[in-house]
Amino acid sequence: MKTVLGRELPAYIEGYGEVKPFQGAVSNERIKTRKAVKLTSVIPRDQKVLASLDQALDKLNIIDGMTISFHHHLRNGDHVLNMVLEALAKRGIKNLTVAASSIFPIHAPLVEHIKNEVVTGIVANYMSGPVPEAISRGELKKPALMQTHGGRPRAIESGDLHIDVAFIAAPTADTYGNINGVEGKSACGALGYAVSDAEYADKTVVITDNLVPYPACPIEISQVFIDYVVQVESIGDPRGIVSGTTKITKDPVALLIARMAAQVIQASGLIKDGMSFQTGAGGTSLAVAAELKDIMKREGVIGSFAAGGITGYLVEMLEEGLFRALFDVQCFDLEAIKSYRNNKQHQFMSASMYGNPHTKGAVVNNLDIMILGATEIDIAFNVNVTTGSDGVIMGGSGGHSDTAAGAKLSIVVTNLMKARLPIIKDKVTTITTPGESIDVVVTERGIAVNPRRVDLIEKLRKTELPLLTIEELKLKAEKITGVPKAIKTSDKIVAVVEYRDGSVIDVVRMVD
Amino acid sequence: MKTVLGRELPAYIEGYGEVKPFQGAVSNERIKTRKAVKLTSVIPRDQKVLASLDQALDKLNIIDGMTISFHHHLRNGDHVLNMVLEALAKRGIKNLTVAASSIFPIHAPLVEHIKNEVVTGIVANYMSGPVPEAISRGELKKPALMQTHGGRPRAIESGDLHIDVAFIAAPTADTYGNINGVEGKSACGALGYAVSDAEYADKTVVITDNLVPYPACPIEISQVFIDYVVQVESIGDPRGIVSGTTKITKDPVALLIARMAAQVIQASGLIKDGMSFQTGAGGTSLAVAAELKDIMKREGVIGSFAAGGITGYLVEMLEEGLFRALFDVQCFDLEAIKSYRNNKQHQFMSASMYGNPHTKGAVVNNLDIMILGATEIDIAFNVNVTTGSDGVIMGGSGGHSDTAAGAKLSIVVTNLMKARLPIIKDKVTTITTPGESIDVVVTERGIAVNPRRVDLIEKLRKTELPLLTIEELKLKAEKITGVPKAIKTSDKIVAVVEYRDGSVIDVVRMVD
Repeated sequence: MKTVLGRELPAYIEGYGEVKPFQGAVSNERIKTRKAVKLTSVIPRDQKVLASLDQALDKLNIIDGMTISFHHHLRNGDHVLNMVLEALAKRGIKNLTVAASSIFPIHAPLVEHIKNEVVTGIVANYMSGPVPEAISRGELKKPALMQTHGGRPRAIESGDLHIDVAFIAAPTADTYGNINGVEGKSACGALGYAVSDAEYADKTVVITDNLVPYPACPIEISQVFIDYVVQVESIGDPRGIVSGTTKITKDPVALLIARMAAQVIQASGLIKDGMSFQTGAGGTSLAVAAELKDIMKREGVIGSFAAGGITGYLVEMLEEGLFRALFDVQCFDLEAIKSYRNNKQHQFMSASMYGNPHTKGAVVNNLDIMILGATEIDIAFNVNVTTGSDGVIMGGSGGHSDTAAGAKLSIVVTNLMKARLPIIKDKVTTITTPGESIDVVVTERGIAVNPRRVDLIEKLRKTELPLLTIEELKLKAEKITGVPKAIKTSDKIVAVVEYRDGSVIDVVRMVD
Repeated sequence: MKTVLGRELPAYIEGYGEVKPFQGAVSNERIKTRKAVKLTSVIPRDQKVLASLDQALDKLNIIDGMTISFHHHLRNGDHVLNMVLEALAKRGIKNLTVAASSIFPIHAPLVEHIKNEVVTGIVANYMSGPVPEAISRGELKKPALMQTHGGRPRAIESGDLHIDVAFIAAPTADTYGNINGVEGKSACGALGYAVSDAEYADKTVVITDNLVPYPACPIEISQVFIDYVVQVESIGDPRGIVSGTTKITKDPVALLIARMAAQVIQASGLIKDGMSFQTGAGGTSLAVAAELKDIMKREGVIGSFAAGGITGYLVEMLEEGLFRALFDVQCFDLEAIKSYRNNKQHQFMSASMYGNPHTKGAVVNNLDIMILGATEIDIAFNVNVTTGSDGVIMGGSGGHSDTAAGAKLSIVVTNLMKARLPIIKDKVTTITTPGESIDVVVTERGIAVNPRRVDLIEKLRKTELPLLTIEELKLKAEKITGVPKAIKTSDKIVAVVEYRDGSVIDVVRMVD
């Protein structure tokens, strides 16, 4: 069986199920279903606060084979996933599937739980650190399932990903389960990735280190979705939760790439009133934002919104009046948290509202310009941000595929070579985002435009930007680095990469 | 078949269906289901704004027998229900069910649509004016269905009330369907009653007279639930939408009742830090709030929240620090709208979060004190706010049953006689709220406590408040007014009164 991109897939993958091969970024099948939810109603005088995590686990009746979920708003400072897994391991529970929106190095103890088969399945949109390394070594019993930030809520809401119990870390919670991420010692800002879990899990437990009297204010996730509330000493390490302020790169090559990307955007004609924009929090991406900001100021342009994970840099642009609003699914730094707490134009969005393709319209659908990264790009413009050049999982889509699919102009900014390896390949190791969603690749040695974008090629030809074909760009790098040896993989599938619509766009095979 | 309150009901009602008789305010059956929803996903480049209501109706394919819904946030200024019904009548559509959260005198044109069988079913939580009069005369083909503010979202979310198309009047909407009620010439404040309609209807259409560029801010109901957006000249008449400022009564009898009610509350021991409170916007209710405010200030008490439809008076209490937060399902006056727009402690709640008994805990569950009105009360403390003494429908539960069920102390404040008729009867004409939810009745001539509340009777005996049995109170009035003649009704059922959980607590029969 093949995807429309030519990837060979088995029709059935043990531990995953039947494979629906990727057939293109936008499907004609428009009718979708949000699943029914069974819940236990809470009546007057019921109490939700339990004395301890153990008391919650007693009540929840977690058994072998269940799926438990976590959000990643506490990032590399998260204590909750480890705390819950340790308690479940002690109880002798086996064969759990951990559906965490992302997994970070701090979740290293999961490796032991994987070895002991406490955890035999993992679902995540992004993974870095020891856990994906263990998965890549074939240690997880079932293939890991890699989703996207929009694909995860799609899977949860459709019923494709059934969550038995959602454990929701909450920087602030009241006694009836209303929560927010803006107050408390573990403040992390918007809690966009936890919304679908709360709404669709069979049971939801809030874990907080800041239990406040009813009602919490603001309320990001409502009491109507929460079964129990547990107070613990600490849900996270602030040093790992947010950085102080995200900074623009000072690397001259990166700055050159950013400048060229901005020129591409300008040439595209998209810099005008009402424009919208998203970028990651990486140094190069922020440098593009800085370039864009200069152009917008010079030309007196007022944009509609910037979106995504929000940084202080975007907050500055909002406050300077360059955008009318921000859409925030998670805050990347303290400036973003402060703005989100205080500025009504800095608006919350759930991950579903952000990128779920099976709603009546996600925010990514309204994006004009998206700045993306890449580990590898191939000559069909397919992008890999899932595996490294060694075939080991070290990332994942996050919002990559979602924003690329939605934006009018998706630009990948990257050095042409990294660690003496060329970025452009005949075929990427793993396809994360399909080439049809990528419009332009900007490198320090040239710019390649997807041939599908004839309009854009014409516009860029009128500029002095170094326009090349993707094949020419590839050759440029290979002249310096040579053609790297292909990775040898075994037949064993260690991860299934789902596109945002739930089709399988690729699999990750174990490196030999 | 009988309810637990002794009302005779048929097992099956033509035009309604099988009857589940009322069995008590709180059921032991705790597992509930939120239904699945089929939706048409919106993909990048899709447009939602349509040129006219007629274009929307072309797209919606509304056919005979469908259920269409409306919210009542524009109250007696609403233009949208009439506008849509007129357009559908012109198209020759018949047998529609109109599920409007409430119906007001401005909806008089519905009477003609009822006669012509354009509309053969009506579902509402509250009705006043010509429409309930026509229903009471037996003109509507099917019995009207009277729900509660919490029961309506319960019915919608469970699937008991299936909405084919929700027409959502929006004081402000953007081009992708994000809406709020705080901006625009038809501003009405919080849009709490429209949330379940948007989330669970097959199709949702926003009708606005203030179409703004994307994105609207704030967003009360998200784009992810909206199919189409239509701009019209006017969605409502501001004079009917909000009053200037709601005022406390100056009537000395009402003020006496309010003072006694406040004394009851004080004697109950509920006036303490963390207390919560709700009252309607009526003059007497607000007078109770004023009394309470004095006590709270005198005793230095800081409450947790006040809830419900919000008035300027409650805003004042919030701003003076007497409550930490407000929960707002709808704004009753301009002061409330302004506060809701600007003050983060003045928080939104959907009708479901407000009162739906089949969630993981509605706000009413956390109410300490609720001040209620009554048209009639009987010696079992059952309250009628649905029909007048002539048996004609002139109201409905609204949030009456929901708050009474949730609150620790539900107090009915009422004159003992109105228009020379006694308020206390052996049996109320229609049971809206069951007596088990009513703790105290306060009249100018005495106070009756529900015998179930032995604790409260003991506390009140220690005060000088004029404590009587409900029978004694009844006799007091009857000595002056005599015993009014019973209303003669026919067998024809003109309305079914559903308790918040979907059971039938009573029916309204046509007056002979």
